[in-house]
Amino acid sequence: CIPGWFARPTSTETSHDAGSRRHLREFLDEMRPENIRDHLRKFTRLPHLAGTEQNLQLAEQIKGEWLAYGLDSVEMVPYDVLLSYPNISQPNYISIVDDLGNEMFNTSLSEPVPEGYENVSDIVPPYSAFSAQGQPVGDLVYVNYGRTEDFFQLERQMGINVTGKIVIVRYGNIFRGNKVKNAMLHGASGIIMFSDPADYCAPGVQPYPDGWNLPGGGAQRGNVLNLNGAGDPLTPGYPAKEYTYRYNLEEGVGLPKIPVHPIGYHDAIQLLKNMGGDVPPNNWKGALNVSYRIGPGFTDGFSTQKVRMNIHTNNQVTRIYNVIGRLRGAVEPDRYVILGGHRDAWVFGGIDPVTGAAVVHESVRSAGKLLRKGWRPRRSIVFASWDAEEFGLLGSTEWAEENAKVLQERAVAYINADSAIEGMYTLRIDCTPSLHTLVYDITKQVNLNQLSINCLFQDYTVAISKLGSGSDFEAYFIRLGIAAGRARYTKNRKTERYSSYPVYHSVYETFELVERFYDPSFRKLRAVAQVRGGLIFLLADSQLLPLDASQYAGSLTKYAHTIAQLGQKHPDALVKYGVSFDSLFSAVENFTVAARDFHERLTTLDRTDPIQIRMVNDQLMYLERAFVDPLGLPGRPFYRHVIFAPSSHNKYAGESFPGIYDALFDIERTANPKQAWDEVRRQISIAAFTVQAAAMTLTPPA
Amino acid sequence: CIPGWFARPTSTETSHDAGSRRHLREFLDEMRPENIRDHLRKFTRLPHLAGTEQNLQLAEQIKGEWLAYGLDSVEMVPYDVLLSYPNISQPNYISIVDDLGNEMFNTSLSEPVPEGYENVSDIVPPYSAFSAQGQPVGDLVYVNYGRTEDFFQLERQMGINVTGKIVIVRYGNIFRGNKVKNAMLHGASGIIMFSDPADYCAPGVQPYPDGWNLPGGGAQRGNVLNLNGAGDPLTPGYPAKEYTYRYNLEEGVGLPKIPVHPIGYHDAIQLLKNMGGDVPPNNWKGALNVSYRIGPGFTDGFSTQKVRMNIHTNNQVTRIYNVIGRLRGAVEPDRYVILGGHRDAWVFGGIDPVTGAAVVHESVRSAGKLLRKGWRPRRSIVFASWDAEEFGLLGSTEWAEENAKVLQERAVAYINADSAIEGMYTLRIDCTPSLHTLVYDITKQVNLNQLSINCLFQDYTVAISKLGSGSDFEAYFIRLGIAAGRARYTKNRKTERYSSYPVYHSVYETFELVERFYDPSFRKLRAVAQVRGGLIFLLADSQLLPLDASQYAGSLTKYAHTIAQLGQKHPDALVKYGVSFDSLFSAVENFTVAARDFHERLTTLDRTDPIQIRMVNDQLMYLERAFVDPLGLPGRPFYRHVIFAPSSHNKYAGESFPGIYDALFDIERTANPKQAWDEVRRQISIAAFTVQAAAMTLTPPA
Repeated sequence: CIPGWFARPTSTETSHDAGSRRHLREFLDEMRPENIRDHLRKFTRLPHLAGTEQNLQLAEQIKGEWLAYGLDSVEMVPYDVLLSYPNISQPNYISIVDDLGNEMFNTSLSEPVPEGYENVSDIVPPYSAFSAQGQPVGDLVYVNYGRTEDFFQLERQMGINVTGKIVIVRYGNIFRGNKVKNAMLHGASGIIMFSDPADYCAPGVQPYPDGWNLPGGGAQRGNVLNLNGAGDPLTPGYPAKEYTYRYNLEEGVGLPKIPVHPIGYHDAIQLLKNMGGDVPPNNWKGALNVSYRIGPGFTDGFSTQKVRMNIHTNNQVTRIYNVIGRLRGAVEPDRYVILGGHRDAWVFGGIDPVTGAAVVHESVRSAGKLLRKGWRPRRSIVFASWDAEEFGLLGSTEWAEENAKVLQERAVAYINADSAIEGMYTLRIDCTPSLHTLVYDITKQVNLNQLSINCLFQDYTVAISKLGSGSDFEAYFIRLGIAAGRARYTKNRKTERYSSYPVYHSVYETFELVERFYDPSFRKLRAVAQVRGGLIFLLADSQLLPLDASQYAGSLTKYAHTIAQLGQKHPDALVKYGVSFDSLFSAVENFTVAARDFHERLTTLDRTDPIQIRMVNDQLMYLERAFVDPLGLPGRPFYRHVIFAPSSHNKYAGESFPGIYDALFDIERTANPKQAWDEVRRQISIAAFTVQAAAMTLTPPA
Repeated sequence: CIPGWFARPTSTETSHDAGSRRHLREFLDEMRPENIRDHLRKFTRLPHLAGTEQNLQLAEQIKGEWLAYGLDSVEMVPYDVLLSYPNISQPNYISIVDDLGNEMFNTSLSEPVPEGYENVSDIVPPYSAFSAQGQPVGDLVYVNYGRTEDFFQLERQMGINVTGKIVIVRYGNIFRGNKVKNAMLHGASGIIMFSDPADYCAPGVQPYPDGWNLPGGGAQRGNVLNLNGAGDPLTPGYPAKEYTYRYNLEEGVGLPKIPVHPIGYHDAIQLLKNMGGDVPPNNWKGALNVSYRIGPGFTDGFSTQKVRMNIHTNNQVTRIYNVIGRLRGAVEPDRYVILGGHRDAWVFGGIDPVTGAAVVHESVRSAGKLLRKGWRPRRSIVFASWDAEEFGLLGSTEWAEENAKVLQERAVAYINADSAIEGMYTLRIDCTPSLHTLVYDITKQVNLNQLSINCLFQDYTVAISKLGSGSDFEAYFIRLGIAAGRARYTKNRKTERYSSYPVYHSVYETFELVERFYDPSFRKLRAVAQVRGGLIFLLADSQLLPLDASQYAGSLTKYAHTIAQLGQKHPDALVKYGVSFDSLFSAVENFTVAARDFHERLTTLDRTDPIQIRMVNDQLMYLERAFVDPLGLPGRPFYRHVIFAPSSHNKYAGESFPGIYDALFDIERTANPKQAWDEVRRQISIAAFTVQAAAMTLTPPA
């Protein structure tokens, strides 16, 4: 639950705020399920892969409609970034070859196209974007999810070295780019990723089109970069404009050096069924009717057979387009609230990203309606349709790079609008702690009860978590330190163990998938639109920024205990190497006092003095910025948030105190414990300093 | 001259500004030469080396007096930083030894103490702070000033390799730390630095105490670090507090690995007079009565003799103290104008730094007087007495590190207050271009005519230059991007070729040196006090910030032409490697237009709307910040200002577009021209982007 909410001083609400609330109600009520349905239908008829003509046309269409809805300005912002496409004349596939090199079996070249889309051209086949080219031949080794711990178990407990082998891993659990990185680190010559029904099918659900499970011929596209927030691999730190210096491909950030390819489970069975070697522990086994032997290579009758990957994917500098719409603030035009989500899709983008883009579209329409009635928010609102998210968050990151200075100085918050749905169970909100109170406020405004979701906030459940990565908020939150959040409809994590949703990044992400299964009434999407829109609205229009430093204090306290407990798994080492978390706890305590006093002072603030208001709003706005370390996390210069970042071992998961977390992660794997514990001490010191410095920003300014 | 000044809209002056002008006059008139004399007298009786009891006592005294003058608060802020002191029981010296190791000659262990100071204890002998310990023995090689080009000339044209040799260099021209770095790079086993009369004596002037020239027994102390803005060598990037992680000495930033020692010219003659080898070109010769042969080693009759250095200096983590005084702003307490200068001195600090500290003291006194009359500036003023500047700008850098977030968000400007005098000729002001107009304004207020200086601004000369480094503004300007300036009385650069001033960092920097020779009336120091104080006053009290973006545009245009000309020395290579400065010129042009339009809009600004004022002031305040690249210059993460930083080859000199400058510097010395020109292209691209991003901050905010 959200402690502190009930302590929030409502007595300081002004008449401006009361008027603002009425406009908020109008803004939310104006959003209609049937409109969202129409936007989704319209934007999912054709594929719109980043860098293609179709996606440019979609950008033009969105620009035109946003202007028609009434935004003050809408511009197309191009960048020339590195993308990656299959070679049309040399398709990618994987073979089982005999000792003469004859192909005994080949994986499929494409997914069976769903009904109604048979005549669509330009459906890109499943591939791993940015894979290296090559045709490695070798024995297969099965390495479960390809996590750091899986490779360690393989090498240390099972005694298998993957050097020169082709590894086969199942999708899920961690970001696919981390699997590829691990495979490279351990010397594999190629990596095949498959969707196991254990991870991509819900029990009792039919494969699409009869249900929403992944069919055996479907496969998960996706990029396999390890960018760590760099954006375009050839222009790290700077926007990919015409004049920008570009590194050579060999110097590019995060590009894998080995071939990578994704397959579906029908093809996976063929590769796995004759594998030899030991049977792995049960937690390495998926749901296919094979024994999941780890190899290396095939079993007796097939032991002369090898696997060959045939990968001809090309990297190519390509023009992409963001669409940026602006609504000028009436009082503080130099304060920006951003609602951004991507437009590019692997194929139709039925869920990812168009459920998100449709929701943004409806928010723009509703805001335009209010504008015509004479309303204008206190602060400016920026709406963004990002390009090339699927290729490494490129559009959003390049724009953040180009506008870094202005954003650092003026951005109040960034709300992300990727897929609005990934399940049918409840609303899920991942956000920075200072947004917790506002999230609670907004979800009360949105009548979620009609969606019959369960109780957590008094009478209904809303799952609130930390931000990880994997979508366009990354550069804004983790690099620039702008308060950020995202909201979507999600699955029940306790009972639904598959990663994301079954047909994720396949050709089966269609309009019909949403209309038939996920949200036939389009009320879930409307609820998400109202939550995202409501956040934007109150951030832009409240006189006092609805950001809560005390919520941050509460979260920091929790995180400090969590990370200290992780350290306390090694009580002897803590003593031996002089490691203490005291400075961190002390800094968190100082922050807690500073936050409490700050909010206490707000209750007596003179709400008629514009400079007083601006001063405390600046403190609130810059609070998130205070958690950014310009030196970045170790080896990851573009991940700079000391409180929240993905672990080095899984881009998807948001860790708190990621520097300390990664240092502790290394403890069990290091050959030099003194050095590893020194790094833990160093990271604790940096975290303590950062929290302390953040506390200083909350004290009275002179 | 300062174009644009006459275009400055005086019609927008408000009644607030008129009142502010009257207070400025009072503030300036209150500063008295006799008070500055008294402060100087009081603060120079005893040595006050950083880390000593005397310097702590001086800090306490200053704190007490600032409180008595009326500041709102004054605090002592301690840090534990790495300092370096000679070993009292094992003095440092250099010997000429015979082939049995017998000492034939030893350099002096201390400087002859000036009259009146014979009973003073704790005068630290001349030494090179942070020298490595050791007793290397070897042949001497003379390498002129020890510049990059000197070593290249020595190796490539004279064919001499200094590996394993002890090099002897004369002081001057570049920062001593760069000499040491170059000696290490070329393999020397030790380095001796001497003050040559050609560089440290003015013609026709007597040695102290009969004149202000350096006596033969005097020598220049100083640190020999290559910190590049890191602050405390053991805690780069973070304040050196109790909880801070400290690197080991071997990992410390910028610590030399070889022994280093400074000597005077009496001792230098003994080392140089019997040197063998070739006679160097004339520009390698100083003014001593020796032939300046380059060695290696001694000439015939002395060829078995070697030189031995005996260096026992210790590095030691030591507590230092900044004194921070605050005067709360009446309207915008969250905007800070900082006047900071150091307090620690090598010995008495007669010029360096106490002429500066005395001037700050008088400014505080004068401000206190106004405060008692009910005045309070619009913005807050912070007065700082930094510690351990002489050991690498440590006090100021640690405070900048500890307060980085708050300063980035709120600091309007930093005015430096190191030595207020280095000559008797004219006023010299080094500052960021956006301060040019204000500097002109202030120097008109200060009646410099009574000091009879020549004409440049209409009727008198004021030398205005770029900021380099070598004093406490560094972290504020080059790391954090806070508009900065410094002012002092200087020599005539055309006729006075010695570096700094002759007795710089010697025991002869006494009160009497200033009173007898440099400023008997103390009017030069008063003028400096008025300029520094006047800058602070108008920055803190003007309704519209007196920062001029058009001046920046003019300077950028000039710098772009200068750096392009440097590139155009290689016309063929520019074509061959596709190097163009077009993007830089284009960005500068965009910046120029944005700046012009910005100032144009100011003329119609509603000066009664507090939010409008704050918005444009924020744009002006953050303009300097826009030139900071968080990724830093290559290999120098704490030098982040893309427009101004010292060259990698000389910390003292401020270069414009330092990234491009350094890349071009490497062109003539590289073995891989393709790579070197790629780096030039990359740096041009970064500069163009940065200027373009700065232009964006000046456009209307929504």
